[in-house]
Amino acid sequence: MSDKRQPLIEVYGHGGDVETAASTFGQPISAFLDYSANINPLGPPQGVITALQEGLGAVIRYPDPGHRSFKGMLAEELRTDAQRILVGNGAAECMALLLMGLQPRTVGVVDPCFSEYRELSVKFGSDIRSVCGRPERDWRADKADIVALLARTDLVFLGQPNNPNGVQYSLEDIRDMASAAEQEGTWLVLDEAFIDFIPLEDRQTLMPELHQYPRTVIVRSMTKFYAIPGLRLGYTAAHPDVIQAMAGKQVTWSVNGLALLAGEVCLGSGRDYEQNTLQLIHEERVKLMQGLQALGLDVTPGEANFLLMELPQHMDAESFQREMGRRGVLVRSCAMYPGLGERHIRLAVKDAQSNDRMLAMAAEVLLKSSG
Amino acid sequence: MSDKRQPLIEVYGHGGDVETAASTFGQPISAFLDYSANINPLGPPQGVITALQEGLGAVIRYPDPGHRSFKGMLAEELRTDAQRILVGNGAAECMALLLMGLQPRTVGVVDPCFSEYRELSVKFGSDIRSVCGRPERDWRADKADIVALLARTDLVFLGQPNNPNGVQYSLEDIRDMASAAEQEGTWLVLDEAFIDFIPLEDRQTLMPELHQYPRTVIVRSMTKFYAIPGLRLGYTAAHPDVIQAMAGKQVTWSVNGLALLAGEVCLGSGRDYEQNTLQLIHEERVKLMQGLQALGLDVTPGEANFLLMELPQHMDAESFQREMGRRGVLVRSCAMYPGLGERHIRLAVKDAQSNDRMLAMAAEVLLKSSG
Repeated sequence: MSDKRQPLIEVYGHGGDVETAASTFGQPISAFLDYSANINPLGPPQGVITALQEGLGAVIRYPDPGHRSFKGMLAEELRTDAQRILVGNGAAECMALLLMGLQPRTVGVVDPCFSEYRELSVKFGSDIRSVCGRPERDWRADKADIVALLARTDLVFLGQPNNPNGVQYSLEDIRDMASAAEQEGTWLVLDEAFIDFIPLEDRQTLMPELHQYPRTVIVRSMTKFYAIPGLRLGYTAAHPDVIQAMAGKQVTWSVNGLALLAGEVCLGSGRDYEQNTLQLIHEERVKLMQGLQALGLDVTPGEANFLLMELPQHMDAESFQREMGRRGVLVRSCAMYPGLGERHIRLAVKDAQSNDRMLAMAAEVLLKSSG
Repeated sequence: MSDKRQPLIEVYGHGGDVETAASTFGQPISAFLDYSANINPLGPPQGVITALQEGLGAVIRYPDPGHRSFKGMLAEELRTDAQRILVGNGAAECMALLLMGLQPRTVGVVDPCFSEYRELSVKFGSDIRSVCGRPERDWRADKADIVALLARTDLVFLGQPNNPNGVQYSLEDIRDMASAAEQEGTWLVLDEAFIDFIPLEDRQTLMPELHQYPRTVIVRSMTKFYAIPGLRLGYTAAHPDVIQAMAGKQVTWSVNGLALLAGEVCLGSGRDYEQNTLQLIHEERVKLMQGLQALGLDVTPGEANFLLMELPQHMDAESFQREMGRRGVLVRSCAMYPGLGERHIRLAVKDAQSNDRMLAMAAEVLLKSSG
C-alpha cells in the first residue's frame, strides 16, 4: 500500500467502515447503503435478535472460557470432534492465533487476496512470499504456482472462495494442494469465510475429509452469512495439535457471551434461512452482473455474495467511490490490492431494491463522468 | 499450579465459571449465587440494557476498528489524549498486547496475584520472577522488594488494588516504584481493574500524573464496575509509543460493537450509579467482614468489592467450596495462588440479602464440619 494514495474510506484497510465514511462524506452512518462490506442482506436469522434481547441479562456473567455449548453444536454440525475446533473472536482472531501458534517464518499469499493475510503475517513476524492470480483465470493462480509457493514457505493462506474476486478452486485442485502441503511440511490455511454463500452442491470444500490432511486448516466466519459482524464470531477446524497450539495463544474470554449465544441460535436456525439466502444471492448476483455489464463494467464471474469488477477507462476507483459516497452509496475500492489496478472495485450483492437504487446511481455517476 | 490438585470449578484458572459449576454441582446456571466473580451487585447502569436492546440492530455492521467514539469519551473522562489510550477486548487483551508489543524477556509478579499475569507472560514467551507479599502487611510486598524486582526484570505487573487481597499501595509508594521503573528502564504495569470500587478520595492512582512516567502503564476494566463481563471491554493508558506498540499487535475488530456501545452509555451514566455502588460496597463489605469474623474466619481488610480470608483450621478451601457449591453458592478457592495456603478463599461483596443468605450457609457448613 505504501506506493499508493491514502484511501478515502479504507483507512483501516477494510470495507464496512461507516464511521470513516460518515466523516468523509458528511452524512450520518444510517444514511448509507453499504456495498463495501459483504454481509447477508437478509439480516440475522429470525430468532437471533429476539434471543439476544432475551439473553442481554447474561452480560453480567463472564462468557464460558471454553465455549463448550457452541463448540459442541459446531462439532455436531461439522461431524467432527470438539478437539478439532477452535472458536475465535471472528475469523481474524483465528488467523492471528494460527500465526502465533504455528510461527511460520515465511507466509505465502495469492494476490489479489484479503488484506489481513499480509497484515497479520507482518504483525506476528513472518516474511511474505506471493504469487499472482491470472486475469484470464478470473484472478485464480495456476495450481503449479501455488504448489511451488507451498514448497518455499511455511504457511500459505488461500481464500476459498477468494476475496475480492469471489471464485473457488476446484476440489480436485484443493486436494492436490493439500497433498503438496503434507509433502512439503507446509501449513495450508483455507479461508472459507464466504463459502456458506455458495449452494451446497457447488461448494468446493475439504471439510468432510479434513482429517486426511493434518497440515490443512479451515477458517470460517459466522458473521458474514449470519449478518452479525458487530458481534465477532468465527472458528477453525484442524488437527487437534494445531487447535492446541492456537488455544495456547488465545486470551481468556476473547469471545464474548452474546456472540456465543447468537452463534448457537444461528446454528439452530434451520434450513429455510439458508435456502432463502442462497436463492436471493444467486438471483440478485446474476441480475447485478448483467446490470453492471450493461453500464460497461468488466465483471469477474464470482460465486459468492460480492463481485469484483473493473470500471470503464474514463473513471478510476477513487473517483467512482467519491461520487457514489456523496450519493450515499459506499463501494469498496480495490486499488490498494496488490495485483489489481486503479479501476478495480468490489460490490456486495444485496436485495433487489437496494441493487436497483445502487445501479441507478452508478449509471448517473458513469454517465456524468463520460459526458 | 502443577503440584496442586485439579480445582473443582476453577478449571480455567478463574472464578465466575458457572458452566463448570453447573456440571460439577448438578444444578442449572441460574440457580447459583456467584461469590467467585467480583461483579458490581447493582448490575449495569440503568440505560445500558435499554441502549443495548435498542442498538442490537447495529450487530449487522462491523465495529469501528478505531474505537473512535468510545475512545474520545474516555480521553475526556481521563483528561488525556486519545493517542494515550488503547481500547481492548477486556483488560486481559490489554495485558496480552502489552506483552506482545513490549516483548519483555522477564516479567515480575508480586504473589499472591491475578493468575493471568503469569499465564499470559508464559503464553507470550517471558520468564517469570516473583516476590511474595507479607501476611502481616495484608499480603503487600515490601516496597524495597518490588523496587529490587523492577531492577531485575523487564516488566512488572502490580494490582492496585491487588487481587485477591484487595489492598492498595500508597500513592507515595507507587510514585517511588514508577520512578524506579524509569531509572531501571523497566515497564511498570499497574492493574487498576478494581480501583473504581474504591471511593475517589481513597483511590491511590497515578492516572492524573501518568504523563510524568513514560515507563508506567495503567490497565483498567469496564466490565467489573459496570457489571458487563459478558461483553468484554477494558482499556490501557500509557505513553503514545506504548499504545502504538500494543496497537501493532491488536487484531482488527477485536472489540465488539455492543461492548463499545455499552462503554459509551456507562461513561455517560452519571454520578448516581457510581455513588450508589460505592456506598453499597462500603456498607456491605464492613458487615460481611464482621459476619465472617464472627464465624471464625481470618479476613484480610481489603478495600475493594471482594475479600480474601482464611478458613478455620478444621476446614480447607476445597471442602468449603464443595459444601457451599452443593447449597448453590459459588466461592473462589485461593488454594492455587502461589503464596497462599489450602484454607484461603475469596468472596465477592454483594447486596445485603445475598450476603445474609451466603453467611447463613457458611455458618451451616462450618458448624457441620466442626461438630
